[in-house]
Amino acid sequence: MAEVSNKQPMTGCGVAKVIDSGHQNFRKGDLVWGMTGWKDYIGWILIALILNFVGLPGLTAYAGFYEFSVVLLFLPSTIFLPKFDLLKDKYGFDEAFNYKEEHDLDKALKRCLPDGIDIYFENVGGKMLDVVLLNMRLHGRIPMCGMISQYNLEEREGAHNLIRLITKQVRMEGFLVSDYFPMYPKYRDMVLPFMREGKITCVEDIAEGLENAPAALVGVFSGRNVGKQVVLVAHE
Amino acid sequence: MAEVSNKQPMTGCGVAKVIDSGHQNFRKGDLVWGMTGWKDYIGWILIALILNFVGLPGLTAYAGFYEFSVVLLFLPSTIFLPKFDLLKDKYGFDEAFNYKEEHDLDKALKRCLPDGIDIYFENVGGKMLDVVLLNMRLHGRIPMCGMISQYNLEEREGAHNLIRLITKQVRMEGFLVSDYFPMYPKYRDMVLPFMREGKITCVEDIAEGLENAPAALVGVFSGRNVGKQVVLVAHE
Repeated sequence: MAEVSNKQPMTGCGVAKVIDSGHQNFRKGDLVWGMTGWKDYIGWILIALILNFVGLPGLTAYAGFYEFSVVLLFLPSTIFLPKFDLLKDKYGFDEAFNYKEEHDLDKALKRCLPDGIDIYFENVGGKMLDVVLLNMRLHGRIPMCGMISQYNLEEREGAHNLIRLITKQVRMEGFLVSDYFPMYPKYRDMVLPFMREGKITCVEDIAEGLENAPAALVGVFSGRNVGKQVVLVAHE
Repeated sequence: MAEVSNKQPMTGCGVAKVIDSGHQNFRKGDLVWGMTGWKDYIGWILIALILNFVGLPGLTAYAGFYEFSVVLLFLPSTIFLPKFDLLKDKYGFDEAFNYKEEHDLDKALKRCLPDGIDIYFENVGGKMLDVVLLNMRLHGRIPMCGMISQYNLEEREGAHNLIRLITKQVRMEGFLVSDYFPMYPKYRDMVLPFMREGKITCVEDIAEGLENAPAALVGVFSGRNVGKQVVLVAHE
């Protein structure tokens, strides 16, 4: 994973439109996506805007579940209070809670999942992971793609319950979505019909203008966004 | 994993000799092994003694490596100072150190393994695991069968570097040797020729008498044993 450098533009995934092209694979007007960085224009003269479900978050979910797992039982709300209601009321989850609002995470997990957890998609880390470990079932799986609660801490919280990986024979494995880029066409062909049928819904939180991208990013860490944080760099 | 109960004999693996049998599969004089518990005699009237390499530790190593891994690069000394010299001088390991004697475990690891770790067989836990995580290589593997440094702590040490599982795409997975008991004949057929040829060596630390088993067990946690701690319950 590349570190963020002061001297380089921020990395980021973008959707862009080709304005001009000398490359045979790209024509004026084509829509493309990729790791564009936070830019108005990139190499082949493009306008970039940062995007949602058909891009990285969806591919990450696809890779994590289709590579590691069988059935999704539980996805904790990694987001802010008003949002976890959406998960139950609008998006059909059986249970949801906000890990930032619960005094006793172990109690919250046992309330929502009295029989324990088969698969936990790790993107939170810290206390949340530690309590999840206490509630994993035999032969559970923990695909890990991030630990958002830990990125900005001076000292990361420790996981004290790793011994449960042994007693419950759990697999915990990290992955980077970039390894699954070659799988993108397969993922897209699976997911687009679901989107057309309304079986998969995208929620986007749109910030307008590249100048608002830094504040939007900061908001993601406090959970201000509702849905995938998108930055609209330019209208078509 | 069954908890130890005050009212039941300690669990343990034993080698035993059949004194008498009404079962068609066992005859007087047969040697058998299994989870006998800490007993002089068990169900089918046996005398038990607790055993070493052909039993659980060997099967654990076999399961961990043949199930999870390809090549062993590194095995830390989980044992006491006089013993890790044995690992290099007598048993042919390239490098070894005693995690209880090193002030800076990260430095010790980098000294022994400057290119990092591909496979770490976890049986220590705590600070050792935390530093190992900092030194894992891309797509490394951590089979976990125990965490001896953590069993007797009031509060277990935390692992603060789990994010390395993501950035290095490492798999960490716990297992219990009891799941691999059906694999025992296969393991035995592989390992016995190596033992006869002297390619695999057993080191046993023998305590005589079942009454000395508790003290021998306590010694394991402080690292007093050199080799597998065996309790000789009865001579043939």
